[in-house]
Amino acid sequence: MGKGGMSVGEEVKDGGEENLAAWLVGVNTLKIQPFSLPPLGPHDVRVRMKAVGICGSDVHYLKTLKCADFVVEEPMVIGHECAGVIEEVGKEVKSLVPGDRVALEPGISCGRCGYCKEGWYNLCPAMKFFATPPVHGSLANQVVHPADLCFKLPDDVSLEEGAMCEPLSVAVHACRRANVGPETNVLIMGAGPMGLLVLLAARAFGAPRIVIVDVGDYRLSVAKELGADEIVKVSTNVQDVAEEVVQIHKAMGAGVDVTFDCAGFSKTMSTALSATSPGGKVCLVGMGHNEMTIPLTPAAAREVDVIGVFRYKNTWPLCIELLRSGKIDVKPLITHRFGFSQMEVEEAFETSARNGTAIKVMFNL
Amino acid sequence: MGKGGMSVGEEVKDGGEENLAAWLVGVNTLKIQPFSLPPLGPHDVRVRMKAVGICGSDVHYLKTLKCADFVVEEPMVIGHECAGVIEEVGKEVKSLVPGDRVALEPGISCGRCGYCKEGWYNLCPAMKFFATPPVHGSLANQVVHPADLCFKLPDDVSLEEGAMCEPLSVAVHACRRANVGPETNVLIMGAGPMGLLVLLAARAFGAPRIVIVDVGDYRLSVAKELGADEIVKVSTNVQDVAEEVVQIHKAMGAGVDVTFDCAGFSKTMSTALSATSPGGKVCLVGMGHNEMTIPLTPAAAREVDVIGVFRYKNTWPLCIELLRSGKIDVKPLITHRFGFSQMEVEEAFETSARNGTAIKVMFNL
Amino acid sequence: MGKGGMSVGEEVKDGGEENLAAWLVGVNTLKIQPFSLPPLGPHDVRVRMKAVGICGSDVHYLKTLKCADFVVEEPMVIGHECAGVIEEVGKEVKSLVPGDRVALEPGISCGRCGYCKEGWYNLCPAMKFFATPPVHGSLANQVVHPADLCFKLPDDVSLEEGAMCEPLSVAVHACRRANVGPETNVLIMGAGPMGLLVLLAARAFGAPRIVIVDVGDYRLSVAKELGADEIVKVSTNVQDVAEEVVQIHKAMGAGVDVTFDCAGFSKTMSTALSATSPGGKVCLVGMGHNEMTIPLTPAAAREVDVIGVFRYKNTWPLCIELLRSGKIDVKPLITHRFGFSQMEVEEAFETSARNGTAIKVMFNL
Amino acid sequence: MGKGGMSVGEEVKDGGEENLAAWLVGVNTLKIQPFSLPPLGPHDVRVRMKAVGICGSDVHYLKTLKCADFVVEEPMVIGHECAGVIEEVGKEVKSLVPGDRVALEPGISCGRCGYCKEGWYNLCPAMKFFATPPVHGSLANQVVHPADLCFKLPDDVSLEEGAMCEPLSVAVHACRRANVGPETNVLIMGAGPMGLLVLLAARAFGAPRIVIVDVGDYRLSVAKELGADEIVKVSTNVQDVAEEVVQIHKAMGAGVDVTFDCAGFSKTMSTALSATSPGGKVCLVGMGHNEMTIPLTPAAAREVDVIGVFRYKNTWPLCIELLRSGKIDVKPLITHRFGFSQMEVEEAFETSARNGTAIKVMFNL
Repeated sequence: MGKGGMSVGEEVKDGGEENLAAWLVGVNTLKIQPFSLPPLGPHDVRVRMKAVGICGSDVHYLKTLKCADFVVEEPMVIGHECAGVIEEVGKEVKSLVPGDRVALEPGISCGRCGYCKEGWYNLCPAMKFFATPPVHGSLANQVVHPADLCFKLPDDVSLEEGAMCEPLSVAVHACRRANVGPETNVLIMGAGPMGLLVLLAARAFGAPRIVIVDVGDYRLSVAKELGADEIVKVSTNVQDVAEEVVQIHKAMGAGVDVTFDCAGFSKTMSTALSATSPGGKVCLVGMGHNEMTIPLTPAAAREVDVIGVFRYKNTWPLCIELLRSGKIDVKPLITHRFGFSQMEVEEAFETSARNGTAIKVMFNL
Repeated sequence: MGKGGMSVGEEVKDGGEENLAAWLVGVNTLKIQPFSLPPLGPHDVRVRMKAVGICGSDVHYLKTLKCADFVVEEPMVIGHECAGVIEEVGKEVKSLVPGDRVALEPGISCGRCGYCKEGWYNLCPAMKFFATPPVHGSLANQVVHPADLCFKLPDDVSLEEGAMCEPLSVAVHACRRANVGPETNVLIMGAGPMGLLVLLAARAFGAPRIVIVDVGDYRLSVAKELGADEIVKVSTNVQDVAEEVVQIHKAMGAGVDVTFDCAGFSKTMSTALSATSPGGKVCLVGMGHNEMTIPLTPAAAREVDVIGVFRYKNTWPLCIELLRSGKIDVKPLITHRFGFSQMEVEEAFETSARNGTAIKVMFNL
Repeated sequence: MGKGGMSVGEEVKDGGEENLAAWLVGVNTLKIQPFSLPPLGPHDVRVRMKAVGICGSDVHYLKTLKCADFVVEEPMVIGHECAGVIEEVGKEVKSLVPGDRVALEPGISCGRCGYCKEGWYNLCPAMKFFATPPVHGSLANQVVHPADLCFKLPDDVSLEEGAMCEPLSVAVHACRRANVGPETNVLIMGAGPMGLLVLLAARAFGAPRIVIVDVGDYRLSVAKELGADEIVKVSTNVQDVAEEVVQIHKAMGAGVDVTFDCAGFSKTMSTALSATSPGGKVCLVGMGHNEMTIPLTPAAAREVDVIGVFRYKNTWPLCIELLRSGKIDVKPLITHRFGFSQMEVEEAFETSARNGTAIKVMFNL
Repeated sequence: MGKGGMSVGEEVKDGGEENLAAWLVGVNTLKIQPFSLPPLGPHDVRVRMKAVGICGSDVHYLKTLKCADFVVEEPMVIGHECAGVIEEVGKEVKSLVPGDRVALEPGISCGRCGYCKEGWYNLCPAMKFFATPPVHGSLANQVVHPADLCFKLPDDVSLEEGAMCEPLSVAVHACRRANVGPETNVLIMGAGPMGLLVLLAARAFGAPRIVIVDVGDYRLSVAKELGADEIVKVSTNVQDVAEEVVQIHKAMGAGVDVTFDCAGFSKTMSTALSATSPGGKVCLVGMGHNEMTIPLTPAAAREVDVIGVFRYKNTWPLCIELLRSGKIDVKPLITHRFGFSQMEVEEAFETSARNGTAIKVMFNL
């Protein structure tokens, strides 16, 4: 844990040890190399990373050096799902002290644009976000980050759970935008990591009945264990939509108020639009296809709205409370753990990319 | 006005004259024939029709005997945009008296289902709606209708304007669902009758800047006369979307907060999704294509929501007030007028279907 | 259960047995007397009452013959919290059959006014509500009621629980209007029956932390047993507000997002307004004082809104689901049970009015 | 314009001329004295003040050295309604250049607390606001302010109008919080400067009918000139509430959807609560009484909500657009103008405090 073997809470001067990070330096190439920290600003903290999860976007960057419109043009430290321990605080920081265990929200918004002032800081065009090029990520021994984006973890929430606040935040933001509550029957398309997190979040928001759909038996069995009321196995053939909607309605036994499409393909979105009740909502979370061929008009003519989501805002306090209270248990989703060596980093990403039973792969630094 | 030449306000006994209506009896075939009125219930009124407009859906039924999922299987009286004069009121009716000039809301909802009780009666599955099979329409000398769906017109709102409340209601409902207000920059795809009404409604809701897009010069010139800030001529070629979005942004000179797609094709929806700012809304009003091929994911990832609309709810009082106060002037939209004879009915529908300069075709009965 | 000892589900002709009801005939005077049922309309059902609870307003009518602006001027059947078994259904009723166990929503709205059409039927000025004069109530062997206001109970929800849907609906409506969710820290003023139901409802809506305040030790101990995180004993002296707010904040350990004043006195409202965080809400449920002397301006200047509630709307399906799923258990609130004889009715009302340990008094008919 | 007679846009070094400001140094004592500017941060601008209005709170501070909970303990520069011309911009500022005419939003929020991140920065507990002790105000030759709080004025909006954006913002924020739109009939209690601005804002938000109430004939006549549909003269006697509500309803000729109490006394709030329709809102803007004796319970039992407002958020762009488009004309409200000398400053405040015909008193620096 740092070559000097320093213990948590002890003050570490910048440069007192070599700070290492996992750099994305080319397609399929990650290198653990030194990473210089920026100076600590008055409202910043220095955090020793303890738990960092691998996200699908991390794997995507590794395989292609791009994700959505973002392209990695210079070597970049990867990683953004993280938690750690405060090592040093800036002189204006009053909310945290060295030794505090914190989960990190990865995006630093400008605070000055219209989106930030309206409270939609996730849409800030000047956002600086861990491991979204050209901004470095957090799979490193230490990072410097604004104190107001580091959220103290209660004793009974682990650092790994803290790192899970990031992907859980996407699910929580989706549930908020879709207005899930104690009367909302929920359909989820896709039982991958995001579908499973939406399942947990929707339940915590009170959804009385949740049906989840996937093409794979293993994923569906995990969803059932995690509390889905019913699971429906589907094909990838768009011809089957009408028949599968009948199955979904039967499984729900009631109207579908909100559907989360956590896959994002023409097929899943077609099913989502067709299965959702008049006046309901389809929330598009997955990003499978950029362009989709979908029956949008008949859905719109039943006042089914399509809700988009981008990352999250103001979710960490709620995520931590949901974990603390036990309303959400993310521990079963952490299926693989690795240390922070060159070999283990490579193996971890390979596991995340290829292992069919991997849900969340976590580094313990 | 009925063959007996009865004057408005005079009491007409059911059967005291022959009540004639325009029956859709086959593809491209309308016949003026007798139409028996149902008994007058305690909460009903009998209305002598004075102004009835032709809607695109009327033309569609005439040409194909269907519209969306509805099929005309039995002869059906057509027409649903209407206003008239009260002839008789049911015994429990206190809000209206014979002689009152009224605009009619065409849909009778059940009042007992969840949608009705929640105030979303436009989504009532048991809705009985003028000229939506198998329910008869209102292009007739007289109809019987619930009193609470007949809205008294002030002296300075004409019966033709009263009939225009129906299509205007669609525009008003769309503006409400898209939450148009004094800060909403509006883009409208399509300068047909609905696009023009959305233009008028959005302005009345306070939209500071409105850009409207169409493929036709004549329609764009009408839009400009009706108050569009800028017009943009576009092609029907989907390859041109990116370039046209640049033109639209230039015309707007600011972000696009809400786009109304009043055409409803893959091309228009692609432009709408691409042109709308992060956090904005695209409201799908037109119904050109059932299935669309569109770049939905990048829009959703900017939290651009797609809002569906179906008819309207609780719009008549607002429409009448907007007409009364002069905030909306629909009179320039009424381009052609016809009487209620077999020949004129045929000619009117032909005009509505084929005449490129026809916006709203109106019957004066 | 009727003198003929007829079994549930057997068809009873109107008049085939004597239908008895509890009539309020004067101050402190209830008489069990025959009650003629109205004819069964096509959308009505006839219900044999099985469980009827006593509400504070029932007691208030008994003691004073009035409540709020309503005055009992003619003998009136009392009671409105009720559930029973369907005996007969009108010819248009498809959702229910004889033998179905149902909970009854007591208010029949007009369905034609603006409030009804907007979905705010609880504000309908023409509302006909059980035991709100001059409308008769439901403490009777049988009543006739619209089918759409009779909600089928699942097998695992008892008829007594069904009757509890009525007071629970007030709590659910309050939680909806105050927008309680998984991030809402809730303060409740008053641990009477309504305060306790709001406690249960707020928890079911996800409230992470609930503090409840009362003047009485017994009530506070019940609240603690029912799941309040903290209880705070307070005085009735308005001088103590500032100090008690400090205690409340300490008990909450966080900001107060929503306060429900279930008492409704100047003191409780003063505490509520002072204790609630900027941007929070105070929901006034109790009706202790008509006129209050309260520090409204400092609260408004922190954007603390005051939310009013009147009865409820569209709450039965949710209440039944919350009871079925076990998210709410109202059984501990039913502290006393009585049969339907003259003597027991008198004793039941006396118990409800005077017994300090009575929470909900229930008739089993 | 400073003793060196420097022209706008020319760079002024701090200290290149003497920067003077109006200091509140004791009860009823203002002194024009030198005021040192803070260093210009990278995101700041230096603004030469051109127009500064006097607010009721300025007068209150002058008379009592306090306002609400704020107390002036050290000499403080007064003034916060202001506009001016950019003299110098910080090195990161891209949106503004010297010579730009700007209106200033007076409050600097922290950007890091939960309120700021949620978009409710007006509730930020760390807010630094012009002339709210201990923060200096803007009645000075020059001030330094964050660039993102300086909004460029179009050519056709004057600097005086720019200064009016501040009080107009309160009205706009109130209309937003009360959700005023084209269907909202508005009642305004009090025709002082704030009541008149709410009148203009509500009209711009589409309110079809506005009734305004005051005790003074002159103020009512101004309101009528500014566009009130009806005016109602009332007394200060709380006994008259019931009768005045009848008059108000008659003047409105319809239900009252939203009432703005711009006075804030027990009498005005009692009238507001009683006059507002079921389901309506009362928005408390004025701050006459801290503690009020009001009939809150009957209003709450009609689901009349009380909405609080504190300053504003994100209002400048809308205010500027409303002024630019002519939807709001604030020029008639500027009744008195003064220069920036010791004598004129004293006279201006005296005019604002005592002259019954003064609406807005403006300094031209």
